[in-house]
Amino acid sequence: MIQLSRAEIEHLVTVDEGTVAAVRDAYVAIVDGRGNVPPVGHIAFPAANGDCHIKYGHIAGDPIFAVKIAAGFYDNPARGLPSSTGIILAISAETGEVRAILNDEGYLTDLRTGIGGAVATLALARADAADVLIVGSGIQARYQSRALAALAGQPLSFRIWGRSGEKTEAIVAELKRDGLDASVAPDLEAACREADIIITTTPSTEPLVRSDWVRPGTHITAMGADGPGKQELETVLVARADVRVADMKTQSLGHGEFSHARSAGLIGSDDCIELGGVLAGTLQGRRSDEDITIADLTGVATQDIAMARTVLERATVKQNSRD
Amino acid sequence: MIQLSRAEIEHLVTVDEGTVAAVRDAYVAIVDGRGNVPPVGHIAFPAANGDCHIKYGHIAGDPIFAVKIAAGFYDNPARGLPSSTGIILAISAETGEVRAILNDEGYLTDLRTGIGGAVATLALARADAADVLIVGSGIQARYQSRALAALAGQPLSFRIWGRSGEKTEAIVAELKRDGLDASVAPDLEAACREADIIITTTPSTEPLVRSDWVRPGTHITAMGADGPGKQELETVLVARADVRVADMKTQSLGHGEFSHARSAGLIGSDDCIELGGVLAGTLQGRRSDEDITIADLTGVATQDIAMARTVLERATVKQNSRD
Repeated sequence: MIQLSRAEIEHLVTVDEGTVAAVRDAYVAIVDGRGNVPPVGHIAFPAANGDCHIKYGHIAGDPIFAVKIAAGFYDNPARGLPSSTGIILAISAETGEVRAILNDEGYLTDLRTGIGGAVATLALARADAADVLIVGSGIQARYQSRALAALAGQPLSFRIWGRSGEKTEAIVAELKRDGLDASVAPDLEAACREADIIITTTPSTEPLVRSDWVRPGTHITAMGADGPGKQELETVLVARADVRVADMKTQSLGHGEFSHARSAGLIGSDDCIELGGVLAGTLQGRRSDEDITIADLTGVATQDIAMARTVLERATVKQNSRD
Repeated sequence: MIQLSRAEIEHLVTVDEGTVAAVRDAYVAIVDGRGNVPPVGHIAFPAANGDCHIKYGHIAGDPIFAVKIAAGFYDNPARGLPSSTGIILAISAETGEVRAILNDEGYLTDLRTGIGGAVATLALARADAADVLIVGSGIQARYQSRALAALAGQPLSFRIWGRSGEKTEAIVAELKRDGLDASVAPDLEAACREADIIITTTPSTEPLVRSDWVRPGTHITAMGADGPGKQELETVLVARADVRVADMKTQSLGHGEFSHARSAGLIGSDDCIELGGVLAGTLQGRRSDEDITIADLTGVATQDIAMARTVLERATVKQNSRD
């Protein structure tokens, strides 16, 4: 059995060609029947202001399946601990033996979420889109910016808007050190009105981005609504969009960004398509430079499987090359 | 983080006082509101003749919660591998940090199932019950016999019936080496007619024990029906019993031994009680020496939590005493 620490896993997978291909394939697996994704398990710890999600599944043909246990305990920062923790088990889909324990502390989730956002953004934004607005100043603001900059075929400019000026300055400084064209967006409305691409990465429970602020041709990737009660986009903006793309329809319509428009009766269950179909070329995403497109990514176990498989393949190659 | 192998775990917990107390408490936690047991997760691998169950939950007040991943791949024995594998993670219920990885390979499940069966049997059998019939010759035939012999206040005689004469002889020899009064039961019907206690431990999908063969006063502990489609007792025997006791009503009536009588309309959802209530003294089990009592144990996550907590407490004490 292989056991890897976060530091070891960070050396094995980054925003690299093989990992990006694995994440893309993970979206396609959702639409082509290969993905077996049971409902996410959940247990809450209200007394400790925490909860735990268990995502698991299998992609037909993969030698392993993955079980990811991700906990969020929101009083941890006051104790000097990260609020999110995580561990992924890779288990043989042929014998049930545990092949690897990936003590990634949430790195693989952060990375696959960053890559997934960039893949969706590039699949749906206008070809000439250059001005990117990142809404939020947390971990995913960083991962989304870096993955998108790495995968875009042309230079992009990044503007970051956050509630906390200090945190926003810090992330801009970090991204600049990485060589990105980054600056602080002081005003959310003004920044939305100028953006070609808006990527929302907050845990907001009320809409931040208003429909009036979004011009035709804009693409929005909404990363934040990963559970009931969360919302980053005004409901009428979701209803107004020309193309709505979900990573997994049941999740997006059930508890993601699209769920509010659906509950309000503004869209039906046929009014969104799945990203995997767009990536595979079987479904059309953006139709014109005037379309408003929205990708709502709630996070799917196939991505975790793809990351675990990639880590395991590379760890095994490394091990064999040492033997 | 603590990591323990099966051999290390076998040294820490056996059929001992503290472990038995933890298993008893795990049953009580189901009825007194402390147990938070979400539905069991499941994923099937039909091409590999395998499946995987994820049991998880928390007992209010416990410092940890547990996630158990148990796989069964039924073609494994042909490859020289055990068909069941398992791993338990003990995670802080205060911070979400993984405290321990228990690579028990199913030992803790076998042990808690053995102890649980013995606890239920002793709570419900007649005080003078002495003749025990074990139906089945697999792992649980061993664990049930050993735990019951260890916990009973008086000497018991064990008769073992199995489909395979060879396997049955082997288990009898093993139990004799352990000092138990054990012998082969060549005929299931005759053995049922003579038994005070019948413990069924098979993966049977059709009834093995007929109602006609069971005399008044008998107690039956049914361990096998842990998933849909399994059945060890004739449906009319379940309906005929004077007292039906489940580890967890929703599981027993949903997919356990009691589910068939319920589907047939022979019993209702109020026609069984939970073991934790009997152990806590708030519910009455056996009422007379003529009662037929049946305990149906499907396995509940609180037992896995209790085992993980006990292992962790003892491993920590051991570690501290070395420091």
